[in-house]
Order: sequence, then structure tokens, then C-alpha cells
Amino acid sequence: MQLLEERIIRDGVVREGNILKVDSFVNHQIDVAFIAQLAREFKRLYAGEEITKILTIEASGIGIACIVALEFGVPVVFAKKTMTVNIANDVYTSKVESFTHKRTYDIIVSKDFLKPEDKVLIIDDFLAMGSALHGLIQLIRDAGATIVGAGIVIEKAYQEGGQLIRDMGVRVESLARIRSMDSGHIEFAH
Amino acid sequence: MQLLEERIIRDGVVREGNILKVDSFVNHQIDVAFIAQLAREFKRLYAGEEITKILTIEASGIGIACIVALEFGVPVVFAKKTMTVNIANDVYTSKVESFTHKRTYDIIVSKDFLKPEDKVLIIDDFLAMGSALHGLIQLIRDAGATIVGAGIVIEKAYQEGGQLIRDMGVRVESLARIRSMDSGHIEFAH
Repeated sequence: MQLLEERIIRDGVVREGNILKVDSFVNHQIDVAFIAQLAREFKRLYAGEEITKILTIEASGIGIACIVALEFGVPVVFAKKTMTVNIANDVYTSKVESFTHKRTYDIIVSKDFLKPEDKVLIIDDFLAMGSALHGLIQLIRDAGATIVGAGIVIEKAYQEGGQLIRDMGVRVESLARIRSMDSGHIEFAH
Repeated sequence: MQLLEERIIRDGVVREGNILKVDSFVNHQIDVAFIAQLAREFKRLYAGEEITKILTIEASGIGIACIVALEFGVPVVFAKKTMTVNIANDVYTSKVESFTHKRTYDIIVSKDFLKPEDKVLIIDDFLAMGSALHGLIQLIRDAGATIVGAGIVIEKAYQEGGQLIRDMGVRVESLARIRSMDSGHIEFAH
């Protein structure tokens, strides 16, 4: 999506360790009018699909997911991160590995808010190794709900997550796919 | 706000220890169309005020703040919680005590996203002891920005936070104010 690529070039900051900071418009400050434009693009990409719920993961996915959900006219559910293993039987749980923070945590979602009849679109800001997305897919499968696909703002296409998830048969639509960020220069894959 | 009070009566669950769960429409599942109606009420209450930014705190404030921000046509900034004292000089920090989780944590916001010329509306889901709100006010003051006021979805009016913050001279608008929840029966203050 050209609009997003231009914004990443203009306002994104590449940091050491292959880190792309988009803090000024995606995940610390949120340019909601801009995100609403991305939401309309997700709506166009998933036109004709029946969607009953948007699923995301706290914290930085929540704002984007809510704006996308307004566009689709459905509720959001966000999976909560927890450091303690949750053995309550009223939640679905799975595990997510954070490569940035070098730790594994559990994510949970209440069984009340993910039902077998739900048709779920996953929304998240980043896709790199695919661990968060994989954890969310697991929750949907445990609920017996249908995975319509995933809508990602920025995919690091040089990391394996995107391919891994697509190989599982899950549709992934990423609005910007980064091919490389060597020496701070961002190149996109089309 | 009658619409909200009716929804709380219908879908809220009172748990032991004075806990009100509104997980089905505010802070686990988010009924975004409903929150958009609350956003319009905040817009009406703060009509005539110049607002350049919405400030909230992760995680459960983010979704509501983004929907409110769309209504006001301004960006959101969310303060991040951190367990480690952050001494970086590119962020403002303050402390928030969580009475639910019985611990204190630091919250931070980048100096890039809170400027002296900003006129800030704080948005959050709950106001009880007022610790989160107090921490956010501190960040705005440290930035030299203007506090226009706070917009709260649910205030526990029998706890001291609301009075404390109003006594600081900060305008607080709560869409539902709970006077008591004794024996699971919710009474509102008007």
C-alpha cells in the first residue's frame, strides 16, 4: 500500500538489531485518521468475506484493531498477556515467544468471547517471526471458530513468520512488506 | 449517561472485592459501535474546548481512546507501563499504583509526543482511587502541556479518586458514576 510505504519512509526509524520504530504513528502515538485509511484497505481486501469478530493481542494491536472493527461493524476481542500460567477453565490459552523481549508468555482469551460460530479476522501491527500470530491462530482453533485471515500493518518479509503462517493455509494480507532494512535503508517487497 | 448505565446493569458483573467486570463490552471484548456512542458524548461534553491530543494508558484504555480520538480528529498517545525504572532522558515518567494488582509501576511517554503546546484530553475506562489519572496528569505537567480534562467511562464515586482529581482543579467527566455496588446491586450517582 503506497500510502503506508511512504509514511514508513518518512516517519519510520531503523534502529540497530533490525528494529523498525513506527512510534510516531502506529504504536506509541497513534495517528487514528491514518489508521482509518489502513482500515478501509483491510475492508477492501476482505470484501465478500463474512467476518463476525476482530481478534488482536495487547497492547499495541488494540488501537488498530478497534479502528478496523469500526470499519467492519463487528466487536474486537484482545488476547491478554499473562506471566503466570493460567489454568482456569473459562479461558483458551496459548504461548507467544517475544524475540524482542527475549521471553515467552501465555496469552488468554475468555471462552465467552470466542465461539464456534465466529468468523475471525486477526489484526496486528507487526509480523516478523510469526509467534504472536501463531498464538492467536491457536486460540481460534481451540474455540472451534473459523479463521478468515490476518491483516497486518507491517510484515518483515525477510523473516520467516509470514511464510510459516501462509503455509498453514491461513490468508495473510500485509499492507507493507519490508524486504530489507540494511544500513538503515528500507526496501519493500511487492 | 443513561445508555451506559443500562448497559452496565445488563452486562456488567459484580465480583467479590468491589470489582465490576465489564469485559463483554469495554475491556476484553470491545463493542466498538457502542464505544463510538460514548465518544460522541465526550465530544458533546468537551464541545468548544481546543484539544490537540488524547492521552491514555495501556492496555485497556487504548481502544476507547482511539475511538474517541477519531471523533475529535486528533492523535492518541498511550503511556506505557514498565517494571524497570526508566532513566532515559527522552521520556517523561511517573508512578502508578495498582490496587487491583497490588503493585506500583512506572509509566513513560516519549518527549516527542507530548509538547508544551499540546492541549490534552485524558481518556480512561475506570476511575477509582485515581492513581492512573494522577500519573497521567503528572506526565502532562512535566511536558508543560495543558490539561483540558479527563473523560472516564466508569467512575466508582464511592472511592476517593474522582474528588481528589477534581480538587486538583482538573475537570473530570464520567459517563457513569457508581454510588454503590453492595450485595451485587449497582446504584448510580447523578
